[in-house]
Amino acid sequence: MPHLKLTIAYDGTALVGWQRQASGVSVQGLLEEALAPLEGRAVTVHGAGRTDAGVHALAQVASVTLQRDVDPRVVVKAVNMRLPHAVRLIDATVVPPGFHARFDATAKTYRYRIWNGQVVSPFERPYVWQVAWPPLDIAAMQDAAGRLQGTHDFAAFQGAGTDVDTSVRTIFSSDIQAADVRHGERLITYEVRGDGFLRQMVRAIAGTLVEVGRGRRSPAWIEEVLASAHRATAGRTAPASGLFLVGVDYERPQTAEAGTQNSSLHV
Amino acid sequence: MPHLKLTIAYDGTALVGWQRQASGVSVQGLLEEALAPLEGRAVTVHGAGRTDAGVHALAQVASVTLQRDVDPRVVVKAVNMRLPHAVRLIDATVVPPGFHARFDATAKTYRYRIWNGQVVSPFERPYVWQVAWPPLDIAAMQDAAGRLQGTHDFAAFQGAGTDVDTSVRTIFSSDIQAADVRHGERLITYEVRGDGFLRQMVRAIAGTLVEVGRGRRSPAWIEEVLASAHRATAGRTAPASGLFLVGVDYERPQTAEAGTQNSSLHV
Repeated sequence: MPHLKLTIAYDGTALVGWQRQASGVSVQGLLEEALAPLEGRAVTVHGAGRTDAGVHALAQVASVTLQRDVDPRVVVKAVNMRLPHAVRLIDATVVPPGFHARFDATAKTYRYRIWNGQVVSPFERPYVWQVAWPPLDIAAMQDAAGRLQGTHDFAAFQGAGTDVDTSVRTIFSSDIQAADVRHGERLITYEVRGDGFLRQMVRAIAGTLVEVGRGRRSPAWIEEVLASAHRATAGRTAPASGLFLVGVDYERPQTAEAGTQNSSLHV
Repeated sequence: MPHLKLTIAYDGTALVGWQRQASGVSVQGLLEEALAPLEGRAVTVHGAGRTDAGVHALAQVASVTLQRDVDPRVVVKAVNMRLPHAVRLIDATVVPPGFHARFDATAKTYRYRIWNGQVVSPFERPYVWQVAWPPLDIAAMQDAAGRLQGTHDFAAFQGAGTDVDTSVRTIFSSDIQAADVRHGERLITYEVRGDGFLRQMVRAIAGTLVEVGRGRRSPAWIEEVLASAHRATAGRTAPASGLFLVGVDYERPQTAEAGTQNSSLHV
């Protein structure tokens, strides 16, 4: 009865998100349907976290228990033969029976991509949010992004319709990078790693950082937004197309402090 | 009467190629239709070279003469509003009246991308040729690729149905690179720059280099293929999805020798 950790990549463009829905194609639904013939019965897959409709993943993680004793490499081949090309099982490994993709996750990393320019590359369009104008102030965005590090109540960055005990989360790193694509066109990447994220939190942060980048708000405004604990204070929810779940960690998370003091926490 | 140099990027997946066809959507057709309303009459666009159905371009070049005296930045905006997102006019600049995108081109660069592994990333699938197995011999492929440099008769790498005076071309550089994506999965990139390319030449070269990479042929076989001047001697024509026209040069081309002796040729 192997217990498996599954790693999944998906282009979310045409999907309703991770979670199985009444209608529409979900990653969880596709995986469960692709695993069922291997088992000859219905299978339940537990994801590390939900991603919303249109959000992409480079390495989402899920756990599943199979009745049949099947080689994980066979699982990868068989499942990928049944999945659409937009969803790929990139790895399956046997893990101890107690492993749970969601409860055992210690950190997640998300990336939000902004095309800052007039003409979006045809190859990037499904994977960015276009902010055509003005050229965003990268230094101000980085200043603002850095202020999200640490443990805060992120209620101001929480989408509606959620049911969580607390909106307090710890952000380990929160950084902006910019790369010139060609004259007047830039790709801005926001990468954030934390112990957990609220619904639409990264997209609300991205929308808020762009307000700072436009010069409409100062970097210090981020602290006001956090203190308000009120969604309407922050910027808009940025489009799903720009968001990628980059990966899920299962070792003890690194804080900036712990990392400096004791790098062995990463082993 | 401005004469313009247009630079165009396109995702060729759903296109019949550069050239206007009796049926299907072509890049030339889309551009001409997007330019016509600016002029109030039909317009003819001259491309640097044809790309086949399914082939992509990062920076194809075309030339066009307009009757109306319109700011090139306005042309970019107006044309992109009428183009599908898979095709983007990324630049328009005024050039001397004599400029012709095809006749004045001194070099072109193509890139061919091979996914060498079992599980193709959903984000790469439309832009690669998957060679699942075996792991290709990169050193042998590079050895073979290097033997294409210089001036040769490329008749053995020419697709059927062409009508050109000569199949002799000069290749300035011809190189293989490989990058590990994750365990057991690699992205292999072949990049070739030359003074001109025959129909399906880069795809025939890619198919031939993969034969060497599989170990079915030695790198020296490339010289036999060239000498044969017979298409059936070389490897298969690799799929269009992996091919990108990277760019077109209009300065005097660099040869390896000239580059070493006199770098001012690049100005």
